[in-house]
Amino acid sequence: MITNIDHLGIAVTSIDAALGYYEKVLGLKCTHREEVASQKVRTAFIPCGQVNIELLEPTSPDSPIAKFLEKNPHGGIHHIAYATDDITSQLAQASGAGARLINETPVEGAHEKLVAFLHPKSTFGVLTEFCMSKPGAQH
Amino acid sequence: MITNIDHLGIAVTSIDAALGYYEKVLGLKCTHREEVASQKVRTAFIPCGQVNIELLEPTSPDSPIAKFLEKNPHGGIHHIAYATDDITSQLAQASGAGARLINETPVEGAHEKLVAFLHPKSTFGVLTEFCMSKPGAQH
Repeated sequence: MITNIDHLGIAVTSIDAALGYYEKVLGLKCTHREEVASQKVRTAFIPCGQVNIELLEPTSPDSPIAKFLEKNPHGGIHHIAYATDDITSQLAQASGAGARLINETPVEGAHEKLVAFLHPKSTFGVLTEFCMSKPGAQH
Repeated sequence: MITNIDHLGIAVTSIDAALGYYEKVLGLKCTHREEVASQKVRTAFIPCGQVNIELLEPTSPDSPIAKFLEKNPHGGIHHIAYATDDITSQLAQASGAGARLINETPVEGAHEKLVAFLHPKSTFGVLTEFCMSKPGAQH
């Protein structure tokens, strides 16, 4: 079951530049930075209520975020991540209801979470992630 | 001060079609539908934890959502709305920190709220809304 929105992935060309906006214009604070080698991104987490804003900066030209920034050079909202209490059954429900899965089984994401993506062509244009904390993880 | 993310605005060509995805694939439920004449949109609200997913369907070809759908025919994430406890001082802070305001003063939005938008060219590509419940409003 989906319990809440875990984070919003926002593509930026430079985390250092974008943090000035989030901290000065919006008054929010970055609490965590992490590189996710599997996704070829650097990330910065900015809590806002129950949701984390996750800034995503590519570390390689073949990062999915680099490709997104080619089409959206100012940056933009890349994906919505929903927290689920059971990612395996969530994927089965999504597939059974007709969604196209990018990840048939969960993969390792940031913050010691298991994540899986649905394809935006089957989600009305919104790249959609499911995520679940691994048992015993700190976050 | 920003307290949380109030809602995510998601552009769709048809609310009726998109609700099937949100309800069957994600298992969420629509709790409220409303037409906002000033924005030329029909809206559907789908609560998910602290955040509302706000589906936006244009009611006119010159709706801002119709223009977004011309560029993004599958639909997509249109804006992030942050709840603030004082929208006037939030706008002053944003302007003072260099953000470009679409609305210099708040306007009437859905759910009996006061809303104001920042221009995406000054927010790293993310159309950004501030919103605040009007005193005495039900929502």
